[in-house]
Amino acid sequence: MTTTATTLKGQPLDKAFLDSVLRRRMFFTPSFEIYGGVSGLYDYGPPGTALQSNILDVWRKHFVLEEDMLEVDCSVLTPHIVFKTSGHVDRFADWMCKDPKFGDILRADHFVEEILEARLKGDKEARGQKVEEKKEDDKKKKKKIKGAQEAIKLDDAVVKEYEEVLARIDNYDGAELGELIKKYDLRNPKSDMQPSEPVAFNLMFQTSIGPSSNLAGYLRPETAQGQFLNFAKLLEFNQNNMPFASASVGKSYRNEISPRAGLLRVREFLMAEIEHFVDPESGKKHDRFSEVENIELDLLDRDTQLSGQTTINKMTIGKAVKDGVVDNETLGYFLARIYLFLKKIGIDTRKIRFRQHMANEMVSYSSTDKPLLVRQRLEEPRTVQEWEVTLDKKKFGPLFKKDSKSVEAVILASTQECREKWAKELQDAGKAVVEVPELGKVDVSKDLLTVEYRSRTEHVREYTPNVIEPSFGIGRILYSLCEHAYWAREGGDEARSVLSFPPAIAPTKVIIMPLSSNKDFTPHVARLSQKLRAAQISTRVDDSSATIGKRYSRNDELGTLLGITVDFQTVKDGTITLRDRDSTRQVRADTETILTAIKEIVGGSKTWEDIEKELPVFEGQEVENS
Amino acid sequence: MTTTATTLKGQPLDKAFLDSVLRRRMFFTPSFEIYGGVSGLYDYGPPGTALQSNILDVWRKHFVLEEDMLEVDCSVLTPHIVFKTSGHVDRFADWMCKDPKFGDILRADHFVEEILEARLKGDKEARGQKVEEKKEDDKKKKKKIKGAQEAIKLDDAVVKEYEEVLARIDNYDGAELGELIKKYDLRNPKSDMQPSEPVAFNLMFQTSIGPSSNLAGYLRPETAQGQFLNFAKLLEFNQNNMPFASASVGKSYRNEISPRAGLLRVREFLMAEIEHFVDPESGKKHDRFSEVENIELDLLDRDTQLSGQTTINKMTIGKAVKDGVVDNETLGYFLARIYLFLKKIGIDTRKIRFRQHMANEMVSYSSTDKPLLVRQRLEEPRTVQEWEVTLDKKKFGPLFKKDSKSVEAVILASTQECREKWAKELQDAGKAVVEVPELGKVDVSKDLLTVEYRSRTEHVREYTPNVIEPSFGIGRILYSLCEHAYWAREGGDEARSVLSFPPAIAPTKVIIMPLSSNKDFTPHVARLSQKLRAAQISTRVDDSSATIGKRYSRNDELGTLLGITVDFQTVKDGTITLRDRDSTRQVRADTETILTAIKEIVGGSKTWEDIEKELPVFEGQEVENS
Repeated sequence: MTTTATTLKGQPLDKAFLDSVLRRRMFFTPSFEIYGGVSGLYDYGPPGTALQSNILDVWRKHFVLEEDMLEVDCSVLTPHIVFKTSGHVDRFADWMCKDPKFGDILRADHFVEEILEARLKGDKEARGQKVEEKKEDDKKKKKKIKGAQEAIKLDDAVVKEYEEVLARIDNYDGAELGELIKKYDLRNPKSDMQPSEPVAFNLMFQTSIGPSSNLAGYLRPETAQGQFLNFAKLLEFNQNNMPFASASVGKSYRNEISPRAGLLRVREFLMAEIEHFVDPESGKKHDRFSEVENIELDLLDRDTQLSGQTTINKMTIGKAVKDGVVDNETLGYFLARIYLFLKKIGIDTRKIRFRQHMANEMVSYSSTDKPLLVRQRLEEPRTVQEWEVTLDKKKFGPLFKKDSKSVEAVILASTQECREKWAKELQDAGKAVVEVPELGKVDVSKDLLTVEYRSRTEHVREYTPNVIEPSFGIGRILYSLCEHAYWAREGGDEARSVLSFPPAIAPTKVIIMPLSSNKDFTPHVARLSQKLRAAQISTRVDDSSATIGKRYSRNDELGTLLGITVDFQTVKDGTITLRDRDSTRQVRADTETILTAIKEIVGGSKTWEDIEKELPVFEGQEVENS
Repeated sequence: MTTTATTLKGQPLDKAFLDSVLRRRMFFTPSFEIYGGVSGLYDYGPPGTALQSNILDVWRKHFVLEEDMLEVDCSVLTPHIVFKTSGHVDRFADWMCKDPKFGDILRADHFVEEILEARLKGDKEARGQKVEEKKEDDKKKKKKIKGAQEAIKLDDAVVKEYEEVLARIDNYDGAELGELIKKYDLRNPKSDMQPSEPVAFNLMFQTSIGPSSNLAGYLRPETAQGQFLNFAKLLEFNQNNMPFASASVGKSYRNEISPRAGLLRVREFLMAEIEHFVDPESGKKHDRFSEVENIELDLLDRDTQLSGQTTINKMTIGKAVKDGVVDNETLGYFLARIYLFLKKIGIDTRKIRFRQHMANEMVSYSSTDKPLLVRQRLEEPRTVQEWEVTLDKKKFGPLFKKDSKSVEAVILASTQECREKWAKELQDAGKAVVEVPELGKVDVSKDLLTVEYRSRTEHVREYTPNVIEPSFGIGRILYSLCEHAYWAREGGDEARSVLSFPPAIAPTKVIIMPLSSNKDFTPHVARLSQKLRAAQISTRVDDSSATIGKRYSRNDELGTLLGITVDFQTVKDGTITLRDRDSTRQVRADTETILTAIKEIVGGSKTWEDIEKELPVFEGQEVENS
């Protein structure tokens, strides 16, 4: 967990410096900054917005178009009843504790993590080991926990224990976090006191809908719900064909207790979510699995995580399904398709791993039962033999009084196995033992309950589909992409930042630069700009008075793919130079030839290397004139 | 205002029927319908989502790409301070009144409008005139106001008065609406009582941000604010060049008192907004105005509206600017560009008019002063001669005590004209008369205040830019587009609905249909589908068992542009038929030729008529086989 991050070219990554580049170039910027800002809220400037659009464009082509998904756009505002039914009102929460002296609100798992990490760091220092720079918001943490960072050596057993706790940090509930705080005497450095017992804090933003203020509502914390609620309509739209997938791109909101620096944990974020609905009987096989089975993925399974390790398991998705590391072909197909998507947009595949969710992360919301129902007309009617229950309601009510509904619900919702057991109990003892969550074990005698094995003919099969939910936080992906695309060009007076986005993703494809403010250049610049715009290639003109070298540097930081220079030679013979961002190499040719080359590179049919083989390389110095 | 709406082909428009088609085909659907729905919230299904994407795609190309705008994506969640400063907290409200008996909440202007319209309708009936069907949610209104619809003849003068009130209905404040209710004795039909005095109801949804619940926030009611707050950063990003425009696409929220049926007044909506910032000294001219000056627009000016009329003034935008109907070239340029955008996406230009905002609709929010400031380095320093004021603060405070700040603020913010007048007063009478809003006229003597005409040299000019704000409610445009694209195909047993969207806008471009479930068709369908997908042309397959005719009808209702049929001839010789949605005519040719034709039609380089001239027309009956 404390690996040293590196740039695209293997240089040590200075995250704080990269962040400052991204802000200076307006990829993103804190919202409402002139009013002091609000943590967890960011605006995207022009390059960030273009990057986001390009990522979404590839996402739609890769998933929605390629797999014929049904894209929907649903309301963010959601009435209380929906999230009450789904369980979000009761369970969509993080654990929060308070500093007893200053009242600071802390997110409990983060607090435990920070203090234990600080102690481990202190231990390393005491042992004279090199302390690696921690990633992300290290500066902030240092400040918060400075009191806890003294170089104190720990017992080897304690180090091991702390490391195991940290490997499992996402798996503790509030009571367990509270126990860890007491057990290890974890104190808030600011007050030198243990924070209060963790309590659940619901992460949904609340509001009220309508003028009379009596309809409570929430901002959705994910887009899934809208897709589930439209399931019946979508199934009908799909002419009742299963399987099918819906997809949705839209903002979601979570009132995070402690948003982290950067775009990794924010309060308002763009999500792209897919809900792939399959028949549980046939949906584990996937028609197109053979297309992806040889793709190798880095997998981190549940058992490895539970053992406190972070060892990666590299294997083909074919083998992972065969060995049961991944449950079935459909799931495997989506994992591979997600990997291919990330690769396509420029995520460094060496930095991708797939982590299996832990048991307590597999929150199963109850809502989905209501709207998710498929009625499949059977080609041939089928005979079903099943244990059926019959209740004598007249006797039931008076006997169980206020509990009768709970008991009845458990009986009606019971499994075949359970019913078989009851049938035997009724025959043997004259009563069945029914476990009711609120009441414990309840005896139901045979004059109230009959359980029989019966045959019936079905013309329609009803079932609840299984759902696979590939979910993408676009901001997190965008931020990771910037990190993976970043490197520093060395040589010259100072290292210069470059963001090497792939052609389809680069926010601006072409920067056009006249050598100077000479008026003869203007019509050439205007014509080039017009032609590229007509070809729908995102282009900007930089006719500022800075040197050509400075203007290229600025555009390297913006990730601009290609650069055109208009110079005195252009005025004479109509030729222009084309420069490649990553190699800084240039070619020179007439305008039409260069425009064709640009279209080929941007469209993905050729690379810069191809173009260099075809066109005369331009070795002239970048003439600086200003 | 009671014109009869017609379809694209001039047929009477049955809006309720069109709505039912749009819902059945899942263009849009009430959100949370299985929980009873929430008024003013809608989900878009697959065709609506695709339509929305296509409209936005054209919007971005037409505005952002064409004009090099700086697109940003800003937070929806906004802290209180921002909308307090901007004036939204105090003024972003509608007038609401209550039924005294039943407590129903009514939007005051709508209430006045509905009752007066009902009376006018009753008058027409009494005069034996044909009562035209009212557009939009007529059914709902009828139900609500049925008590008020008796056929009672009104005096001619009263009719004229009501009509004038209705023409100005958007221009009354709460007190005025209250007076109208009393003057005309407007009663809520449900209770037969006058509703209460109108009170302001703020339309912003409120929430709180962060775990401690003490940071109040709102969902933005428009996207403009985010662009204004980023003005300084955007100006720097634009290398301090003026003019420039920013643009933003995103959701906004308004807690409407009474959302209307359909997508015209909803509580959550997608906006596309442009903020074009210009230098007030030079920004009235526009470089590209000559490109649009001959475009004719239908204009409805302020004076015409105030006179209670709705007469349209048709003129070129060139003449409108020359005659002062439109204030300046830049504004005229944007009006014409908006017109061209609407035309491009398929809005019926016969149904477009541009209405000048009334004075009370020109809400000027005060916030923009703070973030909007341009510092322009002057090429040559300039000498400025101005009246300058100097206050003796030591004497000022003790004299005016608690009022001193108000008086000082008025003096410091005064205009040149005002200062010149004070200079004269100070010279003549030894005191200046200062008008302070809260205090009235205040005398300030010459020992407190000096006003002198002085010269100074400026190297930098500071100014607040003027802003032009083209703002698009995408849902309203989408809904209008559906209405304008709709018509009923007559002939045959029953009229069939068609949505004639332009090629770039049609949600699905091509439907591929095998003639029957014969297995020989499957590989042809798969290959065609794969080829169209590779060309990034949105395609769906309909292999349902319905007849070809029914499948075509379904796709005409979905606005699908073209249809391909795979039949027995295809299996023999590889030819396929291509059908045009609007004419239902077909051509037949080999696959590659048809694919080329599709690309040309979808890309806009050829029309169906062009293709019909090039390829053999297919006259065969639609063979129905199932």
